[in-house]
Amino acid sequence: MRMYDLIQKKKEGYAHSQEEIEWIVKGYTEGSIPDYQMSAWLMAVCFQGMNHDETTQLTLAMAASGDQADLSAISGVKVDKHSTGGVGDKTTLILAPIVASCGVKVAKMSGRGLGTTGGTIDKLESIPGFQTAMPLSEFYRIVEEEGLCVTGQSGNMVPADKKIYALRDVTATVDSIPLITSSIMSKKLAAGSDAILLDVKTGSGAFMKTQEQAEELAKNMVEIGKKAGRKTAAVLTDMDKPLGRAIGNALEVKEVIEVLNGRGPDDLRELSLTLAAYMLVLAGKGTKEECRQMAEDAIASGRALDRFKAMIRAQGGDESIVDDPSKLTSAPYSREVLAEESGWLARMKAGDLGEASVRLKAGRMTKEDTIDYSAGIVLAKQVGDRVEKGDVILTMYASDEALFNENEQIIKDSIQISSAPICENALILSFFD
Amino acid sequence: MRMYDLIQKKKEGYAHSQEEIEWIVKGYTEGSIPDYQMSAWLMAVCFQGMNHDETTQLTLAMAASGDQADLSAISGVKVDKHSTGGVGDKTTLILAPIVASCGVKVAKMSGRGLGTTGGTIDKLESIPGFQTAMPLSEFYRIVEEEGLCVTGQSGNMVPADKKIYALRDVTATVDSIPLITSSIMSKKLAAGSDAILLDVKTGSGAFMKTQEQAEELAKNMVEIGKKAGRKTAAVLTDMDKPLGRAIGNALEVKEVIEVLNGRGPDDLRELSLTLAAYMLVLAGKGTKEECRQMAEDAIASGRALDRFKAMIRAQGGDESIVDDPSKLTSAPYSREVLAEESGWLARMKAGDLGEASVRLKAGRMTKEDTIDYSAGIVLAKQVGDRVEKGDVILTMYASDEALFNENEQIIKDSIQISSAPICENALILSFFD
Repeated sequence: MRMYDLIQKKKEGYAHSQEEIEWIVKGYTEGSIPDYQMSAWLMAVCFQGMNHDETTQLTLAMAASGDQADLSAISGVKVDKHSTGGVGDKTTLILAPIVASCGVKVAKMSGRGLGTTGGTIDKLESIPGFQTAMPLSEFYRIVEEEGLCVTGQSGNMVPADKKIYALRDVTATVDSIPLITSSIMSKKLAAGSDAILLDVKTGSGAFMKTQEQAEELAKNMVEIGKKAGRKTAAVLTDMDKPLGRAIGNALEVKEVIEVLNGRGPDDLRELSLTLAAYMLVLAGKGTKEECRQMAEDAIASGRALDRFKAMIRAQGGDESIVDDPSKLTSAPYSREVLAEESGWLARMKAGDLGEASVRLKAGRMTKEDTIDYSAGIVLAKQVGDRVEKGDVILTMYASDEALFNENEQIIKDSIQISSAPICENALILSFFD
Repeated sequence: MRMYDLIQKKKEGYAHSQEEIEWIVKGYTEGSIPDYQMSAWLMAVCFQGMNHDETTQLTLAMAASGDQADLSAISGVKVDKHSTGGVGDKTTLILAPIVASCGVKVAKMSGRGLGTTGGTIDKLESIPGFQTAMPLSEFYRIVEEEGLCVTGQSGNMVPADKKIYALRDVTATVDSIPLITSSIMSKKLAAGSDAILLDVKTGSGAFMKTQEQAEELAKNMVEIGKKAGRKTAAVLTDMDKPLGRAIGNALEVKEVIEVLNGRGPDDLRELSLTLAAYMLVLAGKGTKEECRQMAEDAIASGRALDRFKAMIRAQGGDESIVDDPSKLTSAPYSREVLAEESGWLARMKAGDLGEASVRLKAGRMTKEDTIDYSAGIVLAKQVGDRVEKGDVILTMYASDEALFNENEQIIKDSIQISSAPICENALILSFFD
């Protein structure tokens, strides 16, 4: 087989055989196929696409390119969840304790944030002492004993995805449904859970800007997950405005504790309960209605909060931050952004707020950037709210006061206040299984 | 400027500015843009194309990427000619002496053969002593004194094309009209002639398999040549069957001498005279009819043969091969392929014969292969001819008898003999200026 011929084949719009896809993934991972041929092939895939069989083979070949977690020794059904990423999305930290407290094990491997998209691992690392890197055996033990564990991906899992994603990231070949599908699903398959719930975001703060793209991705991923023998479902959710009120790592952990205490913003609580309920359904715990009730009870009874503490303790973190969130790192400086007129808050886009939080050092633009866990933004108002001139719309937090000046103007420019009430988008758009 | 953004822009189908194209060509030639980004961009160009302005800017930027010949010190009009390549195409060696003997200077830089396509430089190097590499000053001197000189491209001319072509060759991004146009025309512009005649081949033995593709390429190149301020015209010609009877380097030089002596195959003589006449028209020597007469007179009078000898002498070759072609290298072995039935020769494709000649070592599959100048094929019959069972259709020549066995069967399989006379394609299809 010659890579030249396979590039030509895809360029001309033909489908690859299983053997060809496996040869490409193996060759590129091992280094026998050079970057310049792989990037030409990736660009051809962006134009010609891949059918379900090709995408499945690509996903399976990538999942098999390195170590895979074997959760079979852990008792019961293991459920995983993946979000395509958004601004202020901290649902994993809420739903994992809910689901675990209902007797379904959550063995989750998460990623770090890049660009405007936050990462669960960064959020957890804002908890003093919290360990996100551990041997697989330790990961298995914590899941078995505590019912949940959230870590980063172990060293040699899905090396094909690491290498292919790094190349896509510099060759403008990221936005291809089969390539996104295989990247996400190969990691989920290698992580070993029996059931997978996908939260596919759409809107200004999401990677998929339109609902059509998001639906296509959701359907594709569900199809691939099922072909690979996993129970798979997807929820399509809005990411035009940020989720909850907090953006930034320690700020978001504080908001998680609020929700687990039965308080916190409606949108965040609602999405967390919805996703948790779907995970319980996938695990065979009952109907949608029954599982929804179980999830609500888990919060009301304090059992979910207890599992959150247990996870922090098991992963080496300081669980006392749950009862006293002021022990979390906090920024030395803050600045409020005020409404310049009265009316209804008509626009404050998740994408713009995500960029602002990166400029405050709550996120990273490149993988090498370091994060300030204390930095970020807390919204006092959300899109749709009534505001009066002089009301606080949001507060910025940072370790360097100089970061506020530029940011304040950019945020003000992105805010629109309307003289009439505005229509709000639904948060939960559709469901695919 | 970031290459990532320019890949994305082309991927989305937008046109590049002059500044962007120049930045890409400069960056890639200098090495600041890596191969993997360039190949992704090239693949995006294959899908999205380029408009005339972009193609012109790409061609000009590539032409300016290294040294350019300055023929201004040479008196009179300088005319160049380029063929997109075919099997048995030795017209340059016939028309250059014709045109030079009519008082129009031919300063031509040619290439080596690759795959089924022969190269003028290889053909010339089959003449003992013939030098195809020389300093530009020597090239200018020979053109001025003898009226013609045919060399390889000098060391640092159009480095952008060398580097881009090498990458296209391994990433399946060769077949793109704007990329082919810029590759050919950048070399023609850098070679410095005032007028350029393009012989665009179409058919099984040509790079452009269909007449539509060939026409698009011809129109594109003429447009770009004119935008760059050169008199440019193109002739579309058939390459479904080989040109003339000889395929292989020394065998083709012998056929050239035949034509310059007023003999040789009709098709080769006709195309050489047609192209020579167009070159004389471009140089302003008269009408098509007048120039055609001048070209015929150049052969009839022996003046063209005299210029061929003068070029060989000036470039260090043994001119006595012209009067005694048996001094050219000849193969120790030959084998005839005979007609297995009587009828009309209906199919004997240029592409198949080109591949057969490469297997006999008359051409190279990779740049590193060495050529056997004596090897090749001489046709006794051409498509359309009446053949009787047992007639010689062609003779193979090689330095290794073992090469004949496999080749003979492949050639026999590609030959079709029909019980009825067949329609022949026209040799000269159309003209663009």
